Amino acid sequence: MTVKVGVAGYGVIGQRLADGVASQKDMELVGVADLAPTLSIRALKEKGMPYDLYLVEGADKSKFEALEIPVKGTFQDLLAKVDIMLDSSPGGVGLKNKALYEKASVKAVFQGGESDSVADVFFHGYANYEKGLGANFLKLTSCNTTGLIRAVDCLDREFGVDRVAITIIRRVADPGDYHRGLTNALQIDKAPSHQAVDLMTIMPHIEATGILVHTPVTHGHIITVIAHGRDGRKISKEMALKAFNGHPRIRVVRLADGFLGNASLFRYARDLGNPRGDMYEIGLWEDSVVEWGESVMFAINIPQESVTIPETIDAVRAAMETQTERLQAVTLTNKYLSMGKWL
Amino acid sequence: MTVKVGVAGYGVIGQRLADGVASQKDMELVGVADLAPTLSIRALKEKGMPYDLYLVEGADKSKFEALEIPVKGTFQDLLAKVDIMLDSSPGGVGLKNKALYEKASVKAVFQGGESDSVADVFFHGYANYEKGLGANFLKLTSCNTTGLIRAVDCLDREFGVDRVAITIIRRVADPGDYHRGLTNALQIDKAPSHQAVDLMTIMPHIEATGILVHTPVTHGHIITVIAHGRDGRKISKEMALKAFNGHPRIRVVRLADGFLGNASLFRYARDLGNPRGDMYEIGLWEDSVVEWGESVMFAINIPQESVTIPETIDAVRAAMETQTERLQAVTLTNKYLSMGKWL
Amino acid sequence: MTVKVGVAGYGVIGQRLADGVASQKDMELVGVADLAPTLSIRALKEKGMPYDLYLVEGADKSKFEALEIPVKGTFQDLLAKVDIMLDSSPGGVGLKNKALYEKASVKAVFQGGESDSVADVFFHGYANYEKGLGANFLKLTSCNTTGLIRAVDCLDREFGVDRVAITIIRRVADPGDYHRGLTNALQIDKAPSHQAVDLMTIMPHIEATGILVHTPVTHGHIITVIAHGRDGRKISKEMALKAFNGHPRIRVVRLADGFLGNASLFRYARDLGNPRGDMYEIGLWEDSVVEWGESVMFAINIPQESVTIPETIDAVRAAMETQTERLQAVTLTNKYLSMGKWL
Amino acid sequence: MTVKVGVAGYGVIGQRLADGVASQKDMELVGVADLAPTLSIRALKEKGMPYDLYLVEGADKSKFEALEIPVKGTFQDLLAKVDIMLDSSPGGVGLKNKALYEKASVKAVFQGGESDSVADVFFHGYANYEKGLGANFLKLTSCNTTGLIRAVDCLDREFGVDRVAITIIRRVADPGDYHRGLTNALQIDKAPSHQAVDLMTIMPHIEATGILVHTPVTHGHIITVIAHGRDGRKISKEMALKAFNGHPRIRVVRLADGFLGNASLFRYARDLGNPRGDMYEIGLWEDSVVEWGESVMFAINIPQESVTIPETIDAVRAAMETQTERLQAVTLTNKYLSMGKWL
Repeated sequence: MTVKVGVAGYGVIGQRLADGVASQKDMELVGVADLAPTLSIRALKEKGMPYDLYLVEGADKSKFEALEIPVKGTFQDLLAKVDIMLDSSPGGVGLKNKALYEKASVKAVFQGGESDSVADVFFHGYANYEKGLGANFLKLTSCNTTGLIRAVDCLDREFGVDRVAITIIRRVADPGDYHRGLTNALQIDKAPSHQAVDLMTIMPHIEATGILVHTPVTHGHIITVIAHGRDGRKISKEMALKAFNGHPRIRVVRLADGFLGNASLFRYARDLGNPRGDMYEIGLWEDSVVEWGESVMFAINIPQESVTIPETIDAVRAAMETQTERLQAVTLTNKYLSMGKWL
Repeated sequence: MTVKVGVAGYGVIGQRLADGVASQKDMELVGVADLAPTLSIRALKEKGMPYDLYLVEGADKSKFEALEIPVKGTFQDLLAKVDIMLDSSPGGVGLKNKALYEKASVKAVFQGGESDSVADVFFHGYANYEKGLGANFLKLTSCNTTGLIRAVDCLDREFGVDRVAITIIRRVADPGDYHRGLTNALQIDKAPSHQAVDLMTIMPHIEATGILVHTPVTHGHIITVIAHGRDGRKISKEMALKAFNGHPRIRVVRLADGFLGNASLFRYARDLGNPRGDMYEIGLWEDSVVEWGESVMFAINIPQESVTIPETIDAVRAAMETQTERLQAVTLTNKYLSMGKWL
Repeated sequence: MTVKVGVAGYGVIGQRLADGVASQKDMELVGVADLAPTLSIRALKEKGMPYDLYLVEGADKSKFEALEIPVKGTFQDLLAKVDIMLDSSPGGVGLKNKALYEKASVKAVFQGGESDSVADVFFHGYANYEKGLGANFLKLTSCNTTGLIRAVDCLDREFGVDRVAITIIRRVADPGDYHRGLTNALQIDKAPSHQAVDLMTIMPHIEATGILVHTPVTHGHIITVIAHGRDGRKISKEMALKAFNGHPRIRVVRLADGFLGNASLFRYARDLGNPRGDMYEIGLWEDSVVEWGESVMFAINIPQESVTIPETIDAVRAAMETQTERLQAVTLTNKYLSMGKWL
Repeated sequence: MTVKVGVAGYGVIGQRLADGVASQKDMELVGVADLAPTLSIRALKEKGMPYDLYLVEGADKSKFEALEIPVKGTFQDLLAKVDIMLDSSPGGVGLKNKALYEKASVKAVFQGGESDSVADVFFHGYANYEKGLGANFLKLTSCNTTGLIRAVDCLDREFGVDRVAITIIRRVADPGDYHRGLTNALQIDKAPSHQAVDLMTIMPHIEATGILVHTPVTHGHIITVIAHGRDGRKISKEMALKAFNGHPRIRVVRLADGFLGNASLFRYARDLGNPRGDMYEIGLWEDSVVEWGESVMFAINIPQESVTIPETIDAVRAAMETQTERLQAVTLTNKYLSMGKWL
């Protein structure tokens, strides 16, 4: 069975979802939908329209025609052709779209910016795959939470974790953003950070807290994580590194190799020739891993634009029940996304 | 005749030169040479070694072996197989390499960081192609100068230009650079900037001056240019835009379309799927073009990592005399680099 | 006669206006007015209330009482005591305040953010002092325009200038701003910049144009200026420097002395012990001055938070006619602000 | 007894030490010493030489004469007049100076950049005052460690602390620095950070670890701290805040009041009129305090240029034994520095 997938909102996340789905041999990307001829849509045109474009309600078709951008049909047309929608619309729009999805009997996966109430299940491919099985509406964790849970789930399944404390050093804008930014300033959010709270929703057996600080950079969040061994069983540096090194969605890197920070990882992903310099894996610095009582502390890098793509594709498998077993599902996603091939 | 080309120094520029050469149907990329298993070399390995790797003198082969990076041979081995080398070694190394090139009877094109004395000809594909014909050693203009001359040469050939004044708003580091940077500061250089001086070397009929200010960003220099019509003949906004719009290496953009600054152009190049988010064209803002007496003033964007690739490939054609006519040469380069296809 | 002065809006500009007026021996700062207990008002309290505080309409007095911040009276109370108001309210509020000023028969000087229509005269202390004599409502030029005109007026009075082209490298936010910012991006504005247009309003005999680029820094704009000698009479580097060196509101600096950019000037002003690290003078780099045909090109630094204070105080002298002669007026302002004492 | 104090190195730290000492009624600032007419020395001259200047060996006196900067004598002349030197020379120079101090029978306090071996005692005014009593050579903790220990010592004396984990979000350069910087990048250091290790030297009963990330900003480090109650005795948010609120060197701030990050604190210190916008206190965000098991987590702000001044002055009192009791000593320092007056 080939799952027919559509993408709503062809922006920073949407175009990466489209590419990710297109690479899955058991899925078909039917098309993408958007409202206006943004830079991303113009680039789609200049690339020769590898994906069909549908217009959401409110779009001015004449603007697309003026630019000779082919339009395949309306949002309704798209919904009539798909099994499931990946909704990366601007925050709040997803909730409105949900009514259309229900009417068209189409499932949907919403991104982290949407409110929790939009979905039946708050989902993470590795941590709670089973909860998504057969669900109609799933919501992905946000980029930071998705990457964070990868690392915590990795330790938890191997050794048991009962407490987590994080410091999120957040990149404040994406490359190319002009509508938001920070100049020569760090900014504090009210604690605990929502990422710590969200982690507890996905992994209710863990007590988590954390502080988030915004920083004026664009290439990837860095999170320091303290994971406390369950019931006081110590997690050593060696234990943690062995687990991390075996995880296909975690790339362990070293300062001595030239991975000095978030910008090195972006540079490396560009040099790899990955489209847009994207990286699906979180980076994890071997040099950052230290022990603290029964806990282990370490730093991870979250490539904010692309990190949620694998778990979103996992969500398609769960919702459509094309894979009912967690490890088989994520392994298939990894394979088609070429993740972990360095292992 | 297929020209056999090697690249010395597989860093920011070198890997782009390699890709650029590999796309030319009348050239063959024999291999690339480097000293150490840098991030870029590691990425080459992870990509499956699309290019053969040779080691320059002083390289520790065991470090490559430890990483299972295949090595094809020595720098001398590479020189024995090529007609011409593109030298993007760190500044100063090119001069030392020149002796090897002479000994091996191999021509070479050096990058802008090398001292002028390394070459017989200071070269720009559009502005002085004829000077490079048959030359053994050419040096490219630097990234800013290369892009600047494209725009000035475009106006000069069409309408005549006798004076140019520039303000260079320089990006201070490339994405991923940790060895240099500036934090919350603008920095002034002694005027006139070397770019203005270099322009006069390439275009001796023009009086040029300018001021350079470093800024803490990584995605492209911006230069404001004032070009004075020769002998006081006015260049109007309309005249200038018509000329710019017809140039395959100049991409005219508009604020209303979402091109708000250098970061928008990088974003767009990433969305295009260009490897590393590279762009060969300079951007030129239609909204920036204004008239001032007989002069026209405008702003251009210089994608510093990739802008010199086309002119370097032009230099290969000139040195090897595979094309003796300027416009035919640059047009062939443009074709294989897919430049100007939006025209 | 001691002129009684009030300040509306005790923010970035307002608190500097208050300090500036307080230093003038022929003026009395009656008080400052604001709406809410901002950080600046809290600092005023912690300093021991050197200035009396009045509340504008809409202020919630209980919030001030809760913080034990003494309130002297209402905005109307303040207006009843002053001859002239310096209005540095947020943009648009000044226009509403104007009706109150008219009703109270109080003159006013508005800041650059207010719309031109608010005032009878668009004012610059050095360039058009006479126009302000006796006027009821004046509007200051913006920070960039104020500093730019200082330099252009200096050359114009000495040698004659008929054309000016500028590139503004704008700092995008003030230190402490969290409501605006730019991260790793340069941003282009539609040309010509309003500063060039405003210069022509103040100096109608000059043809001016220019391009503005926003940069992610906080310590001072840098403007490159090309000034063309009137009727083609050459202004040499030596001529320009001699004029600049004699101007009490222009501080000529050198790279070799450690003034490498805008951040050096801020550092120096802090080291001087100036309150807030303020500097009233524009910086002008000797190393940036170059000749271009009959024109001279140079770079200036605009300390955006404090540069308009002297010209605003000039405006008080003009409006109140306490000095009817331009040079006597600005010299008195300079003396009380300790400007030019290094000459 | 009035202690006679000299300062070696009149740079970022040295000029602040000089001001701090000058404000202590039981100390006399004899003079400051430096090597070259830096911007700070030029500013001292423009301020009218409030402090006498002595030249260290290797200084070229003619350069000072050319600028009409009065020189009082040599470094040896200064040493002959003082009881104790505060050495804020560039790293490594302090060690060389030590021989001169020994020869002149002068005590000295070195700054954090010097190697540990230079001193008999590694010192923090609040945490180990007694260790410094009568010592000849003391070394201060670095800026981050000094501020961090203030907060940890505050909790430790009140409730007991046995484990500390930190994430340091480090500002990478000071305002005005052009010799170092980072552009659009976060940078990771090898863990554990030296600040965690240094904390354990000063407070050996605590197990500490941590990770440091450099960020491209200039106004204050931010550290997130997790402090574990000794032997598992819980430290609640309320307990912690009560202790912090009573500490004269900790300023508890709130987001709702406008203290959004490190730049707000710098802005506030400037608005206070503090010379250079300096702040001696660390900031501590009330909104950041959260509980995590028996631990409390919170974020502090370290004003890197000025935070060590109080503890350095404490060191003078300890070394000279003008106060033998810890609390009396720090209270006297606080009083003369006007710290804690908001309590």
